[in-house]
Amino acid sequence: MNAVGVIVEYNPFHNGHAFHLYGAKEQANADIVIAAMSGNFLQRGEPALVSKWKRTEMALKAGADIVFELPYTFATQQADSFASGAVSILAASGCNSLCFGSESGNIDSFYRTIDFLKNNNELFQQKVKYHIAQGNSYPKATSLAFLDLMPNEDMLDLSKPNNILGYQYILSVQKQQASINVFTVSRKSADYHDAYFSSETIASATSIRKALFSENGDISSVRQYLPDTSYNSLLEYKAEYGHFHDWEQYFPLLKFRLIQTTPAQLKNIYEVEEGLENRLISTALESYTFKQFMEKLKTKRYTWTRLQRTCVHILTNTTKNEMDRKVEKASYLRLLGMTSKGREYLNKHKAQLGLPLISKLTLEQNEQLMLDIRASRIYALGTTGKNQQRLLEMEFKQPPLILN
Amino acid sequence: MNAVGVIVEYNPFHNGHAFHLYGAKEQANADIVIAAMSGNFLQRGEPALVSKWKRTEMALKAGADIVFELPYTFATQQADSFASGAVSILAASGCNSLCFGSESGNIDSFYRTIDFLKNNNELFQQKVKYHIAQGNSYPKATSLAFLDLMPNEDMLDLSKPNNILGYQYILSVQKQQASINVFTVSRKSADYHDAYFSSETIASATSIRKALFSENGDISSVRQYLPDTSYNSLLEYKAEYGHFHDWEQYFPLLKFRLIQTTPAQLKNIYEVEEGLENRLISTALESYTFKQFMEKLKTKRYTWTRLQRTCVHILTNTTKNEMDRKVEKASYLRLLGMTSKGREYLNKHKAQLGLPLISKLTLEQNEQLMLDIRASRIYALGTTGKNQQRLLEMEFKQPPLILN
Repeated sequence: MNAVGVIVEYNPFHNGHAFHLYGAKEQANADIVIAAMSGNFLQRGEPALVSKWKRTEMALKAGADIVFELPYTFATQQADSFASGAVSILAASGCNSLCFGSESGNIDSFYRTIDFLKNNNELFQQKVKYHIAQGNSYPKATSLAFLDLMPNEDMLDLSKPNNILGYQYILSVQKQQASINVFTVSRKSADYHDAYFSSETIASATSIRKALFSENGDISSVRQYLPDTSYNSLLEYKAEYGHFHDWEQYFPLLKFRLIQTTPAQLKNIYEVEEGLENRLISTALESYTFKQFMEKLKTKRYTWTRLQRTCVHILTNTTKNEMDRKVEKASYLRLLGMTSKGREYLNKHKAQLGLPLISKLTLEQNEQLMLDIRASRIYALGTTGKNQQRLLEMEFKQPPLILN
Repeated sequence: MNAVGVIVEYNPFHNGHAFHLYGAKEQANADIVIAAMSGNFLQRGEPALVSKWKRTEMALKAGADIVFELPYTFATQQADSFASGAVSILAASGCNSLCFGSESGNIDSFYRTIDFLKNNNELFQQKVKYHIAQGNSYPKATSLAFLDLMPNEDMLDLSKPNNILGYQYILSVQKQQASINVFTVSRKSADYHDAYFSSETIASATSIRKALFSENGDISSVRQYLPDTSYNSLLEYKAEYGHFHDWEQYFPLLKFRLIQTTPAQLKNIYEVEEGLENRLISTALESYTFKQFMEKLKTKRYTWTRLQRTCVHILTNTTKNEMDRKVEKASYLRLLGMTSKGREYLNKHKAQLGLPLISKLTLEQNEQLMLDIRASRIYALGTTGKNQQRLLEMEFKQPPLILN
């Protein structure tokens, strides 16, 4: 059985994701799809709209066969670490291919760009440093440095977020010497060449979330962009928990922690650097919503997502000691769910898996896992009463979802 | 001008307190009353019903002339530290007498008991150790040890909370060699000998709080136990803030912090000893109200108030380093309010005050003051939106209350 890997967040799972899974299987000529999916907190530094269990259900119902949790250690990091952890999971689970969505849609441009930058690395790093010294964020400086070198039009546009991620996936595959073929599919709806996937049925997860949190908050307004199964999962979650998760529910906790802590203690938190600790505390004291807090906090030096990720680490109390250890690979495969075909695959490949498979959680002293457990528990605090209890208990009691 | 000192919490100020102030002035033949009053968190390990500003207002309207804040460092401690900090404030502000309410009502029995225990200290300490080894809390062991020595009936009943406090006040006066005469008035309404203070108008602060938080929560049910001025202050606070403060409002924050932290970090918090850190975390995970949490947490070894105080320190993130320094005296007189007579006194005695007077707060690096500021800010998080903003800003913007 051939498995193609995908690296995803599904926040929420929409038609574009369904198209991606379809394209991945076709291009890689694969029997099943294995997804490395972020847990409850995402790369943009946000709590997921719905729990990782509900997002696993959406994925399994719309084309994925196995979902592994991308540990917190990688899921809430910048592109290189995020890619590195995810690729290590796909490699360990025996995927012989990886397919990602990109703005480019042309895999050759990725390899050309990687070669070009390897050959011009010194000059490139100089340019990056220059643009950081000018007060730009690291991603912005990277993108500007790349433009400075004026590559021709065959090169990748490295200012686009999904091109950057794909670029890092390929670098990780090379670095980890994984036997993985890499493919890409275009994220542009116009390139989909399919009646089922047009601009009328495709919208980004960002715009879908925006609609869900708009003043009317009418779920039906996003119905056309989601597979029916996803739409129903969202309806169910809202009926069960009363709301989708967003930063505003966690802001009172973040504010409390920032008021409670001292600058010296705050400096122990991952990504709190260069005097940011004082700015975080003083901004919290005068903010009453997360939106207000972020707008006051934002400077040119840091990207919005970098600051949001820092806030996630404060919320989960993740210290530099716990994160900053240049770990490149996941230390387990945490199974969130599978289809019967996925189960067949795992049974066949059990002996060849490159990492221990965790399907039932116990309180063991694995540092990556401890962070995942803590993150899930903190995520549960976005709800109250019975709902909080259910989410808190799920982390240990919920067996992997199995779909036929 | 003669000043008599009182050590108080006023949670809330009731008729018994008014009687105490009346008796204090009379017994000490004093012109004014100076109160050392706990801030927003109290000795029983609870948030105050209403803010320290509102409680200052109640005190000034019903007989106190000057209110100084008893720093958090002392206010949230067991009886000996609580007494020590409070006595240092009264001594520094020039009080030549101190009057406390007690179950005993007989000042001689306090002195007799102090002498008796000084003379039998070694034996007494052995007995205390024995009862602690039997699994009793420290206060319980002290009380049992005292009974073992079988003092005659002229001795103080040291199982009564206000006798214990009074005993510690006198010890602190002796230890600090303060020129302060100590008086006591009985707390029993039957001893009040006054038509205005009968069992129909006297109730303990504990029973008043209980009535305020009962299911009906009808303020008018406690009207008969409060001076009109206090009753109106309570009405105003409830109208302004929507509720009185209690632990339940802070429990989501406490729970978050206990889920977020590690046992090793929790051990840095003041009073978290002997494996209590693990018990606190596991109990938080399965509790959904503060009441539930405390009932599960309680053991014979720790008193309820000791555990509540520990929770206050976790809430305010007060570490052993910040508290456990055997400091016996306050390092400032923080003025919360005064009557015109109180102002006259302070103007006259300005030069003789034993500690710096703080009437307007600045962010200076005094450790005791930093704790007070943090405690007030955390206290404000028991409210939301505009009310939270008002309470947060008050700490720096509110000048001392002045009543004519």
